[in-house]
Amino acid sequence: MALIVQKYGGTSVGTIERIRNVAAKVAKYRAEGHELVVVLSAMSGVTNKLVEMAHELQKEPSPREMDVLLSTGEQTTIALLCMALESIGIPSRSYTGNQVRILTDSAFTKARIVSIDDANIRSDLSQGRVVVVAGFQGVDDAGNITTLGRGGSDTTAVALAAALKADECQIYTDVDGVYTTDPRVVPEARRLDRITFEEMLEMASLGSKVLQIRSVEFAGKYNVPLRVLSSFEDGPGTLIVSEEDTKMENPVISGIAFTKNETKLSVRGVPDVPGMAFKVFGPISDANIEVDVIVQNVGINKTNDITFTVQRTDTDKATRILENVAKDIGAEKVEVDNKVAKISLVGVGMRSHAGIASKMFEALAAESINIQLITTSEIKISVVIEEKYLELAVRALHAAFGLKDPS
Amino acid sequence: MALIVQKYGGTSVGTIERIRNVAAKVAKYRAEGHELVVVLSAMSGVTNKLVEMAHELQKEPSPREMDVLLSTGEQTTIALLCMALESIGIPSRSYTGNQVRILTDSAFTKARIVSIDDANIRSDLSQGRVVVVAGFQGVDDAGNITTLGRGGSDTTAVALAAALKADECQIYTDVDGVYTTDPRVVPEARRLDRITFEEMLEMASLGSKVLQIRSVEFAGKYNVPLRVLSSFEDGPGTLIVSEEDTKMENPVISGIAFTKNETKLSVRGVPDVPGMAFKVFGPISDANIEVDVIVQNVGINKTNDITFTVQRTDTDKATRILENVAKDIGAEKVEVDNKVAKISLVGVGMRSHAGIASKMFEALAAESINIQLITTSEIKISVVIEEKYLELAVRALHAAFGLKDPS
Repeated sequence: MALIVQKYGGTSVGTIERIRNVAAKVAKYRAEGHELVVVLSAMSGVTNKLVEMAHELQKEPSPREMDVLLSTGEQTTIALLCMALESIGIPSRSYTGNQVRILTDSAFTKARIVSIDDANIRSDLSQGRVVVVAGFQGVDDAGNITTLGRGGSDTTAVALAAALKADECQIYTDVDGVYTTDPRVVPEARRLDRITFEEMLEMASLGSKVLQIRSVEFAGKYNVPLRVLSSFEDGPGTLIVSEEDTKMENPVISGIAFTKNETKLSVRGVPDVPGMAFKVFGPISDANIEVDVIVQNVGINKTNDITFTVQRTDTDKATRILENVAKDIGAEKVEVDNKVAKISLVGVGMRSHAGIASKMFEALAAESINIQLITTSEIKISVVIEEKYLELAVRALHAAFGLKDPS
Repeated sequence: MALIVQKYGGTSVGTIERIRNVAAKVAKYRAEGHELVVVLSAMSGVTNKLVEMAHELQKEPSPREMDVLLSTGEQTTIALLCMALESIGIPSRSYTGNQVRILTDSAFTKARIVSIDDANIRSDLSQGRVVVVAGFQGVDDAGNITTLGRGGSDTTAVALAAALKADECQIYTDVDGVYTTDPRVVPEARRLDRITFEEMLEMASLGSKVLQIRSVEFAGKYNVPLRVLSSFEDGPGTLIVSEEDTKMENPVISGIAFTKNETKLSVRGVPDVPGMAFKVFGPISDANIEVDVIVQNVGINKTNDITFTVQRTDTDKATRILENVAKDIGAEKVEVDNKVAKISLVGVGMRSHAGIASKMFEALAAESINIQLITTSEIKISVVIEEKYLELAVRALHAAFGLKDPS
């Protein structure tokens, strides 16, 4: 008998019929003798609709009231799931964040969990009940309702698993696990049985959006075994564990992440004096534009070229800002290329293996794909290429590193 | 400067635009220097939709979970109103039942208020905030969410007004006050400036569904001045006060209430022995059929005739039950007339005036309207007549008692 925390996302509880399916899944685990705590998101679409209403009323809605509003979404689904469970004879009880009580700081709309009182949950579990908890929400010291920000339900699940010292935290999504790369691009992509927290973080932040980054960090910090699986089909999913728990030798490369829809911006001929990088990125950051890859090269005549990528939707805004900046600092010109993509190889095994980069460059060269930018971290190598070559490049790398065969 | 509790119902907050109108109304009172506590219902239609979802999942939904579910409706509107208020520069703060805290018993779906903690509200008022409270909901001793049953938001408003010793409790609805009778039937019907709690109770229970009966009882008990007014047009509405506070002589008749869609059922020839009434009404009540007027007449041959009315939708069910009962107790036969209506004259002044009944019967006789049943209470006379004469009868009585002219 194990204590399992399960989290079901918005699509998994998106209709009455799907809520019934979740109840059936919970029933199956319970029949195997497990104790269950179930964390739910709002029905898909509901949160967006509430946000829309708020923005109709107030340009920048009061954060406190936004949290009062948004927390109703999860409160709805927990009640409905309990009804579904009881209709098939399974005793259950729902808890809002306040009822648990999940204490957070008072940073409305992006609160952080401070502590979790597990007394109520433990008491219900010991009485044989399934406990159903509203994800995404908590309460501050003064009794105000707070929410944890987008994807916060994953964080709720992991935090509960940590507080309850659960044997496993299962995150149910609409995919059946983490893949070596996107199967829509590489049909031979393989579901990974295991991946480390570090690798998962790199994969997640690079567009393989299976799990909320914060929840992976949290799970890594408290060493909560995290499993990603499908709520629509059976299967073992992918277990995310700490590096020490991967008892075999780690594969060199675990997966290939990529992002389309990026724009590359270059400021050419930036004077080579201190403070220039700040003068470029300060206004970009002030405009709430997220910057991805940043590369600075030495240019000619004691000037530098500063190049970086942003999401394509920010292209116009970023270009306007940069053109003003370029004038200000006496840079030569701004170049914009909105047809680029980024590919990253991720793997903790990379640390102990030389030659990964050259093998990557070789594979791309063999397909005549030009590399525009390169950045590296300890467990990742990223390149920016022309967007039209993206699929070809991913397939070439997937083959070159033998990812379709279990290592 | 007065402390005013205002309650807006589901239609008054049914759209974003209407929520904005409520904010404007609140702003107007605040500009006059009043302190305001606003109680809201769920957006019209929302509660029904939630109930539907619950019934799709569970035949008899868990009452505890039902309350978790339903309370989201009011939580949504309080957040939205606060956003609307802040968007026009009015500081405000929303409170759920739990946050106030409105302590109730644990009778889920029909809880009773035990006590109200007014500390948070008073503190906000003293800081110049408008306080917005979710109607219809509370919390029990164990921290479970409870609801007060249909129309419970009126009760929340009155209870808050009592706890805060508010100067007035204003109930905003889609009518502009309480009328001498339904203006759709009698165009000369007049809005009453004042009515007593007792009269309002009789009017409300007789189909003039402006206020929830429980809230009127509550207001009477704690002597909370209650005003019914329209949320869509300006006007003084109708003030509901205790009899002692009506400083003039009371009018003999305040209003004429009526209900259509009733069915009259008679059990003829019931043996004149003890226990017969129980044998007739026990099974009716077990079937959750609400009985209105009951009259028992002495029949012939030591038998009685028992006659009563039910809502027309219960006709078939009640008839089937009565036919079995009649066989059981050896009654002669069951007669069903599903084309009757009930009219009642209501007025506290009736107590000190003789001749009201005869004047009523005279007015009906002048129109050749036959009276089928008569019942009376201290401040009410009711008659059951053939349904097709209903409008004629109401108009005749309205004229006979001079209700169109302020008394």
